[in-house]
Amino acid sequence: MQSLSGQSFIGFARSQSAGPVQRCVNPATATELPTDFFQATPADLEQACSLALAATPVLAGLSGGQKAEFLHGIAIRIEAATPDLVSRATQETGLPEARCQGEIGRTIGQLRLFADLVAAGDWIDARIETADPDRKPLPKPDHRSMLRPLGPIAVFCASNFPFAYSVAGGDTASAFAAGCPVIVMAHHAHSGTAEIMGGLVVDAVRASGLPEGTFSMLMGSGRVVGQQLAKHPVIRGVGFTGSRAGGRALMDTAAARPVPIPVYAEMSSVNPVVLLDGAIASRGDTIAAGLAASCTLGVGQFCTQPGLIILERTAASEAFVTKLGQLFAAAAEGTMLTAGIHQAYVDGLAVRAARAGVSLVARGTSGGQPNRATPTLFATSAKAFIADGSLQEEIFGPCSLVVWCENAAERRQVVAALHGSLTATVHATDAELGTNADLIGQLEAMAGRVVVNGFPTGVEVSHAIVHGGPYPSLSDGRTTSVGSNAIYRFTRLVCYQNFPDAALPAELRAANPLGISRLVNGVRQSGSI
Amino acid sequence: MQSLSGQSFIGFARSQSAGPVQRCVNPATATELPTDFFQATPADLEQACSLALAATPVLAGLSGGQKAEFLHGIAIRIEAATPDLVSRATQETGLPEARCQGEIGRTIGQLRLFADLVAAGDWIDARIETADPDRKPLPKPDHRSMLRPLGPIAVFCASNFPFAYSVAGGDTASAFAAGCPVIVMAHHAHSGTAEIMGGLVVDAVRASGLPEGTFSMLMGSGRVVGQQLAKHPVIRGVGFTGSRAGGRALMDTAAARPVPIPVYAEMSSVNPVVLLDGAIASRGDTIAAGLAASCTLGVGQFCTQPGLIILERTAASEAFVTKLGQLFAAAAEGTMLTAGIHQAYVDGLAVRAARAGVSLVARGTSGGQPNRATPTLFATSAKAFIADGSLQEEIFGPCSLVVWCENAAERRQVVAALHGSLTATVHATDAELGTNADLIGQLEAMAGRVVVNGFPTGVEVSHAIVHGGPYPSLSDGRTTSVGSNAIYRFTRLVCYQNFPDAALPAELRAANPLGISRLVNGVRQSGSI
Repeated sequence: MQSLSGQSFIGFARSQSAGPVQRCVNPATATELPTDFFQATPADLEQACSLALAATPVLAGLSGGQKAEFLHGIAIRIEAATPDLVSRATQETGLPEARCQGEIGRTIGQLRLFADLVAAGDWIDARIETADPDRKPLPKPDHRSMLRPLGPIAVFCASNFPFAYSVAGGDTASAFAAGCPVIVMAHHAHSGTAEIMGGLVVDAVRASGLPEGTFSMLMGSGRVVGQQLAKHPVIRGVGFTGSRAGGRALMDTAAARPVPIPVYAEMSSVNPVVLLDGAIASRGDTIAAGLAASCTLGVGQFCTQPGLIILERTAASEAFVTKLGQLFAAAAEGTMLTAGIHQAYVDGLAVRAARAGVSLVARGTSGGQPNRATPTLFATSAKAFIADGSLQEEIFGPCSLVVWCENAAERRQVVAALHGSLTATVHATDAELGTNADLIGQLEAMAGRVVVNGFPTGVEVSHAIVHGGPYPSLSDGRTTSVGSNAIYRFTRLVCYQNFPDAALPAELRAANPLGISRLVNGVRQSGSI
Repeated sequence: MQSLSGQSFIGFARSQSAGPVQRCVNPATATELPTDFFQATPADLEQACSLALAATPVLAGLSGGQKAEFLHGIAIRIEAATPDLVSRATQETGLPEARCQGEIGRTIGQLRLFADLVAAGDWIDARIETADPDRKPLPKPDHRSMLRPLGPIAVFCASNFPFAYSVAGGDTASAFAAGCPVIVMAHHAHSGTAEIMGGLVVDAVRASGLPEGTFSMLMGSGRVVGQQLAKHPVIRGVGFTGSRAGGRALMDTAAARPVPIPVYAEMSSVNPVVLLDGAIASRGDTIAAGLAASCTLGVGQFCTQPGLIILERTAASEAFVTKLGQLFAAAAEGTMLTAGIHQAYVDGLAVRAARAGVSLVARGTSGGQPNRATPTLFATSAKAFIADGSLQEEIFGPCSLVVWCENAAERRQVVAALHGSLTATVHATDAELGTNADLIGQLEAMAGRVVVNGFPTGVEVSHAIVHGGPYPSLSDGRTTSVGSNAIYRFTRLVCYQNFPDAALPAELRAANPLGISRLVNGVRQSGSI
C-alpha cells in the first residue's frame, strides 16, 4: 500500500492545505482510520479551475485515438493497483472484497467502453450539407456539424460506488471521452480510496502527455468545497451521484449562476415492481425469491433497489406477500456504507412505520453490531399510498413497501401517481403483457428502464442501457448516467459554415480520413464526399 | 379573410374568456387593429393541460408515418391559407409581404423536414444488446433502447418570426415530431396571425384523427399566462424565442418547480465578426458591403444579426471602417416589429452612446415616421470593450459596434472575453486560417455556428445547421433550435429489458419491420437480428 498524504490533487501538484481535517471510519467496526484528509482551500479550487481552463482547448483538439490511449492508460493503472484499492475500499466502505473487485472490473470495463467508442469515432454525429451555389432564391452554404466538448466538468463521487461512480467512474470516463477536463470532488467517506485512484489518473495524464489541468481532485466537504466548485465560472457542467437533497442543492446552485450550467444528478429512485395475477399464480415463489434477493442485495444500497411492490389483492398474492415477508425476515443484516447512511435508514424506517395506513410485514433480526441494516418489509393500501406522497420517498437500504390494490382500477391509479424512477418492473404472463399495453405505457412514462419478468438491480454498461429517468431519479431525465450514451451529456453541437477543407476537424473533411459514419445531405454513409 | 374571434383554442373548443382584452397595432402606421383578443383564463389553462395529459400516451403511441401525415397536414393547410396569413401578418408586424411569404415557405419546409425525418424513422437512435444467458459471472439481459417523447411542451412564440418561430414554427414542429402535445402561448403582437395559424393546426389535428389535447393555443400576456403555463405540473419542457429577460424568467421558473423541467430559450446573441488583415486587404470593400447588408437586413431584427465587428487597427482597416460607416449612413431606416421593440432600440442606442470609450461612427437618416429604426455604427477600443460587459449586450436592431484592437494579442483578449453567441464569423485568407487555428478554437467555444468568409444572417433548415450556442444565446447551449437536430430537445431515452418481441415498440422488434438503422451489439445495421 502506498502512503497517503490526505491532500488534494491540483493538476500535477498536491495541495498544502492545513485543514479542516477529516478522517474516514470503518463502518463495520465503527473505528476511525488513521489518515488525516485535508479540505481543499479556496486557492486550491481556483488553481484547479485555472488549470482546467488552460487544458480545455488542448483536450478539445485531441483525436479519438489520443483520448482512447488516455482512457486505456487509466484502466491499466487501475488493474495494476487493484489489491491496494480493494484493501483500502473495504475498510472505508464496509463493502465485501468480492464486491469491490467486481466494481473495479466494471470501472475498468467502463473506461474501455468509452475508449473504444471514441477511437471508432462514429459517436460524434458528423453531418454534412454540401453547398449549392445555384439554389434559388438563395445559394446554399456548406454546413458541417458535430459534437464538441462542453468544457470543464465537476464530478461528485458517490458513496455507494467507490469505484464505478467515483474518481475514475462513469461520469469522469464519459467527460474525458467527450474531451472535457474534470475536477473531481472526492467523497469524504472513502477519501483514501479516492486518493489512490486520483494518483492513478494523474499518472495516466502525465503518461499520455496531456496538460495537467486535465484532472484535479479536491478533498473536503461537498457542501462547502463542492458548492464553491459548482459556482465557479470555469465549470460548464456537473455530474453527481448521491442524495436527493445534495443533488437538488447542486441543481439550484447551477440554475442560479449568472451563466446556468447543466447538472446531471442521479439522486433518488424507488424502482416500483408491478406484479400481475397470472405471474404470481404461475411462479409466485420464484418471483418472491428473486425479489427478496434484489431488495436486499448489497444491503439495499443500490439506486435500482426495488422499494415499491404493487399488486392486486387475491388469495395467491396474499400468499406471495407472506412468502416475501418470510424471506425478508430470514435475510441477513448487513453493514451500511457510513454511520450517517445507517442512521438515515433507522430514522427512515421509524418515520415510515408511523405513517397512517402503513403496517410492518416483516423485518430481519439484528445482532446489535454497528451500522447494520435490518431488511424490512412494510405494506399499505392503494388509497393511503396515493394520499401520502412521502410513501414514495426512497429509504436508502434494504426496505420495501407493498402497495395493496383492491382491483385493476386502483392499480392503474397507483401507477399513474408514481414519481420518476430509474427503473420500473412488471411481472406478467405473455397474455397479460398483451392486454396491459397501457400499463407498459404508464411505466415507460415514469422510468428510464422498464424490466419485464426480471429484477432491476444489476446495471449493464453497454450501448443500450438507460440509467436515468424522470425527476427525482435524475435531475435531467432525458439522459443516462451509465453506458455509452452518457458521453452525450458532456457535449454541445457546433456547425462549421463554408470552411476550407484544411481548416475543418478531421471528422468533417471531404476525404473522411477517419472513415466514420456521417450523414451527408441526409444520407448515412462512411465514404468520402 | 376568415373572421377572428380573439379567443384561445382549448383543444377543439374555443375559450369564452371575457378579458383582459388586448389589440394588435400596425407598427408602420402606429394604428390599432380592430380585433379584441381575450386573455386565456386559469380554467382555460387547466383544461388545455388536462387535455394535453390525456393526449400524451396516444401521441406516444403514434407511428412515424402517422406523425408525418399530421405534419404534412399542417403544411398543406398553411400553404392554402398563405394569402390570409400574409395579409394579417404584414399588418401586425410591419414585415414586408415578400418576407412573410418567404418565412411561410420556410415554415412549411420545416414541417416537411420533420415529417420526412420521423417517416424515415432512423432518428430515433434504436439500440439493441441481445441477451447472453451464458455470460460469466452473470447472464447478460436483453436491452433495447430508443428515444421517447418528453411529454407536453409549452411553446412561446417569437415576435420576430411570426411563422417560422411561432404557432406552427420550429419548436412546435419538432415537439410534434417527437410525439409531444403542444400548448402554444401566442405572441400578443401578432395575435391575429396566431389565431389563423392556430385554426389550421386544429384542423390538421382533427383531420388526422388525433386527440384534441394534441394542441391548444393560449392568448394573453406571456408574463401572466405564460408563467402559469411554465409552472403547470403537466408541462415537461419549454420552447421559447424572445428576449433575454423573458427567457431567463422562464428558466428561473422552470428550475424552481418541484419537478424542474428543461427550457430551450433562444434569447440574445451579438454574433461577433472577426476580420483579419489579409481578408481586409484583399477584399475589404466586398466585406464591407456584405457586412452592412447583414447588419441591417430585416431592420436588424434577426437573432444572427452581427452586432460586433472585431479588427486590428491598420491603414486598410481604418479605410474599411470608413467605408462601412458610409454604408450604414446610406442604409434605409425600417419599421420595427412593435413600438416596444422600437423604444428599446432607441433607448439601447442612447445608453450605448453614453458608455465611456464608445464613439459614433455613422448613423442613417431618419424620416420621422413611427417605429422606424436608424442603422447605427459605434466604435470602441479593445480595452474599453473588455472592461465594460454591457458592451456585449444585444441591442436588437440595425446597430453594430466596431472593436478596435491595437494588435493580435489584444484581439485574442477580446475574443477570449466574448460571451456566448449563436454565431461567430471570421474573414481571413486561407493562409491566415492556417496560422490562426487558436482563433477558430476560441470562436467555436463561444458559438454554435462558426462562419468563414460569409455572413451569419440566413439560417438554413437542415440536418447540419446549429442554431444554438452558449448562454445567453441559448439557455441550453448543447442543442439547436433549428434543423432536424432540434427534435432531440423533446425526447428522453428509454430502455426495455427482456421484453417479449410482441411487447416491444416496432422500432426495436427482431424483424426490424420499419427497416431503420439500428446499433445491434455495437454494430450499425438496418436488417433484422
